[in-house]
Amino acid sequence: MTAEKSIRKDEKSIKLNENSSNALKIHNPCHRKIYVPMLTDDNVKVGMKEILQHPTKNPDGTSKENPPIPVYDTSGPYSDDNYEINLNNGINKIREKWIAERSKNFKDNCTQMHLAKKGIITPEMEYIAIRENILLDRIANDEEYKSLMNQKNGDYFKEQTLITPEFVRKEVAEGRAVIPLNKNHPESEPMIIGRNFLVKVNTNIGNSTISSSIEEEVEKMIWSTRWGGDTLMDLSTGKNIHETREWIMRNSPVPVGTVPIYQALEKVKGRAEKLTWEIYKETLIEQAEQGVDYFTIHAGVLKEYIPLTKDRTTGIVSRGGSIMAKWCLTYDEENFTYTHFEEICEIMKKYDITFSLGDGLRPGSIADANDEAQFAELKTLGELTKIAWKHDVQVMIEGPGHVPMHLIKENMQKELDECHEAPFYTLGPLTTDIAPGYDHITSAIGAAMIGWYGTAMLCYVTPKEHLGLPNKEDVREGIIAYKIAAHAADLAKGKYAVQLRDNALSQARFEFRWEDQFNLGLDPEKAKSFHDETLPQEPAKDAHFCSMCGPNFCSMKITQDIRDYSEKVSIIKIEDISKINRSQEQKN
Amino acid sequence: MTAEKSIRKDEKSIKLNENSSNALKIHNPCHRKIYVPMLTDDNVKVGMKEILQHPTKNPDGTSKENPPIPVYDTSGPYSDDNYEINLNNGINKIREKWIAERSKNFKDNCTQMHLAKKGIITPEMEYIAIRENILLDRIANDEEYKSLMNQKNGDYFKEQTLITPEFVRKEVAEGRAVIPLNKNHPESEPMIIGRNFLVKVNTNIGNSTISSSIEEEVEKMIWSTRWGGDTLMDLSTGKNIHETREWIMRNSPVPVGTVPIYQALEKVKGRAEKLTWEIYKETLIEQAEQGVDYFTIHAGVLKEYIPLTKDRTTGIVSRGGSIMAKWCLTYDEENFTYTHFEEICEIMKKYDITFSLGDGLRPGSIADANDEAQFAELKTLGELTKIAWKHDVQVMIEGPGHVPMHLIKENMQKELDECHEAPFYTLGPLTTDIAPGYDHITSAIGAAMIGWYGTAMLCYVTPKEHLGLPNKEDVREGIIAYKIAAHAADLAKGKYAVQLRDNALSQARFEFRWEDQFNLGLDPEKAKSFHDETLPQEPAKDAHFCSMCGPNFCSMKITQDIRDYSEKVSIIKIEDISKINRSQEQKN
Repeated sequence: MTAEKSIRKDEKSIKLNENSSNALKIHNPCHRKIYVPMLTDDNVKVGMKEILQHPTKNPDGTSKENPPIPVYDTSGPYSDDNYEINLNNGINKIREKWIAERSKNFKDNCTQMHLAKKGIITPEMEYIAIRENILLDRIANDEEYKSLMNQKNGDYFKEQTLITPEFVRKEVAEGRAVIPLNKNHPESEPMIIGRNFLVKVNTNIGNSTISSSIEEEVEKMIWSTRWGGDTLMDLSTGKNIHETREWIMRNSPVPVGTVPIYQALEKVKGRAEKLTWEIYKETLIEQAEQGVDYFTIHAGVLKEYIPLTKDRTTGIVSRGGSIMAKWCLTYDEENFTYTHFEEICEIMKKYDITFSLGDGLRPGSIADANDEAQFAELKTLGELTKIAWKHDVQVMIEGPGHVPMHLIKENMQKELDECHEAPFYTLGPLTTDIAPGYDHITSAIGAAMIGWYGTAMLCYVTPKEHLGLPNKEDVREGIIAYKIAAHAADLAKGKYAVQLRDNALSQARFEFRWEDQFNLGLDPEKAKSFHDETLPQEPAKDAHFCSMCGPNFCSMKITQDIRDYSEKVSIIKIEDISKINRSQEQKN
Repeated sequence: MTAEKSIRKDEKSIKLNENSSNALKIHNPCHRKIYVPMLTDDNVKVGMKEILQHPTKNPDGTSKENPPIPVYDTSGPYSDDNYEINLNNGINKIREKWIAERSKNFKDNCTQMHLAKKGIITPEMEYIAIRENILLDRIANDEEYKSLMNQKNGDYFKEQTLITPEFVRKEVAEGRAVIPLNKNHPESEPMIIGRNFLVKVNTNIGNSTISSSIEEEVEKMIWSTRWGGDTLMDLSTGKNIHETREWIMRNSPVPVGTVPIYQALEKVKGRAEKLTWEIYKETLIEQAEQGVDYFTIHAGVLKEYIPLTKDRTTGIVSRGGSIMAKWCLTYDEENFTYTHFEEICEIMKKYDITFSLGDGLRPGSIADANDEAQFAELKTLGELTKIAWKHDVQVMIEGPGHVPMHLIKENMQKELDECHEAPFYTLGPLTTDIAPGYDHITSAIGAAMIGWYGTAMLCYVTPKEHLGLPNKEDVREGIIAYKIAAHAADLAKGKYAVQLRDNALSQARFEFRWEDQFNLGLDPEKAKSFHDETLPQEPAKDAHFCSMCGPNFCSMKITQDIRDYSEKVSIIKIEDISKINRSQEQKN
């Protein structure tokens, strides 16, 4: 055992600067925080965002209102104008009462999976159902929204299935989805990861021995939720690991994951040979007490698989995987997270922590994709999934890595087959190795594809991947690239309700409602600043043209003209339009 | 006829600043320009690039040389240290003699397609074969390169077919590939666009009435070839269209395309109704004389298809398409580029200009993807292809646009079927509409996929798409995103020779050869600057760790350790490795 003692949860040796934390508030006058009531609990409401639009100006001088577009929102209280941020106090504990009641009623096991299997719908499940629907139940019958969906090909909304709390329960009971919520992280808003729900995005933050302070990490956490990160992994390996995490946990509105072996290794001063099951177990409990919602555990890195990596171009690139491999080789013993797996399940069960079974042997280069080592480990992860489920502990499976496009589908298919449809959670994959500095793009390509094929959560990659630790701007670039991938996957899977936002944005674009185009996008600030580089004046936001073509030359403008003409005739008749055009021509 | 007279080719009213043009030279000491001789012409050599690598330092203090990695190069003389740039003179006319000889021998028709059909292998075809092979013939039997390909799964190089001049000829003769080279653009290096060759990237530049000077556009052209743009479209719509293009043509080592209707419209002061066949034809000839290599012509926008766009979310978004549509509706007449198509073929034939049949009715939003209007036009483009081929004029087909992932494959399949396998040249497609400011990413996803499915050339999209004209940095971001997409597609199509670069980079990464990792990447400057943000000191480039994990914690380092141990035993035996580890342990 190490000398280090577990720091109590309420012990906060530093105070963060409240000035800087107020600066973290997110304000956009056209982004309105809304709260949707729950049926079973009057005190908890589901936070979402509505993007307000300007009216359409018709050619005849009249105008037409445009409906607000509801969107899924991960930013928690930070986007609520009425919420006073106080990092030292932490955010509201919205799940506190639910957890307390549950632990009274279900003493032995109160994991979401256990309750789901018993047929019980938890408040979290209801919350998730409301959240995933993004007001579909309200808007599906509203003519304004229906017209936005441009019903050329039937009724889009009717093709959408409303997600019910019962459906959430069933997916969790059958292991196809997880709700990663530690009972000691009551601050987190409930969310779900599964391939029959919206595709999620995970972001990684964390310091190293080289760089970053606690304050920076907390700021990155808020920054991550602001841009749409659904979950967050704290991968700190530097100083103050415990304390940094404590600040993150108490202020995070999204589930937080860790790789406990990192802290365990820190406890033995970075010497893998000094690791023991006891130190590891102590670390698990320490982090479980803090409220970590999911643990990456590389229990599939078996001793016998290590020689399979010998001829690889990039060997073992997973940090956790290589630590375990070194330990196994040093002692000629089996991976202790594998041999102690049932004990780990007991800990996970007690707190309702979700397994994120790590792919310690994932390929780190195109050359190593889909090889024997990778798939041998995947098979073991499937066996471990069954064991975890026996304990009613939730499981997701981590996936690669670096994979060329034509080998991506095989990854998804094997994961479903070998791991009994447990949700897949992939890092990218990167579809080529040749673009350091742009790996958010090399991997967004693979992420979008594997998301479409069925991956439930995409772990983001920032432009700094392989080169350095991401700063705030890199976090933003990485998340936006991954929100794009996740949304593109949702569209391809036929989640038409999410296409509402595409259609609203495209209509705004077509009508030259510039402010609406910016606000409906994933990054309004950047879109606006790009537009303003060439046309900075405020009136340009109303202009029926842009800097690409100039006032006389815009295809959107010409098409508007065509349509305006056609509005004037009851049935489109080209003869009539040409008459109107010619009479206009004579006037000019 | 307009009053404007055609400016003679040698008339250059301005002189560009030579200081700025020297600053355009591309220098990286580890990127070496090489020239590969042709068999049939001693005076012309095929330019390529070799990326030099540092030696691998072995644990025992010895070192091992690493071979230079040859790569396809589009930068022309600008990356040749021995070449003196003089924008006022233009670059060398490498094809001049070939063109002169050909026009002596084949008076009636000397298009590449005509000669190909006659069974003649042109010097351009030989040049292209050499260029596309990227030294495969030399390296395939070299042990150093073979070991880099990590022959776990057989002999990669042997699976590659060497591209012969005869193969190039056959692909051109059968219309599956085009060599876009106007006889009046002798400066351009020959290149090919076809799905059995490397996937190409087109970039767009050009001023508008709002912004940009000639000097800026020439600089963007060089910038484009520097980062890997295979062809370039000058889409200027502002002042000095003719003169800007003249500067670009005389200095461009890559084929240049235009959309002639833009200049024609400029001649009638932006009034589509004033366009006539005569003005358009005059513009075609003016541009043909200057040496434009391919023309986008929206001859498939038929009058009867226009009403099909009435209920679209974004109507007609192609500038050329909307101009033609407005003209058709004004006069109730058929598109004059369709009715005069055979005359256009005569002009194209005379100069060997390639058709890029424009998709004037492409979808401008996810909502409009794969609709009736789009596919009606595609069918017409297929009919026009047959007519062009009758004249032995080369054809490629432009494609969308905005398409969700699940509808991309249908685009490729329909293009092959309807357009008789003429090469497809697509803009993206963008896979979602919701990310203005990041459309290089939304579209790189679609571009990579459609490239894999068979698209021959990808038209880039910059971050400024929908928002403003790209500046130099946007051009760089757009090209790199598209080089990634094209390379990912090549990998997925099984072009293993290109995987050499991935493997070399990954090996460099694994061995902590930081400088090699930067230089082998698509953007060495950015990769280096990202690394230096956290570890700026020069020794860090030799460091066996990086800022992500710090010195004691790097998975790559641990795996290196594992491998180093295994090197010491003849056959990997875990027992042996653990003995070595334990003896090391005791020493520490």
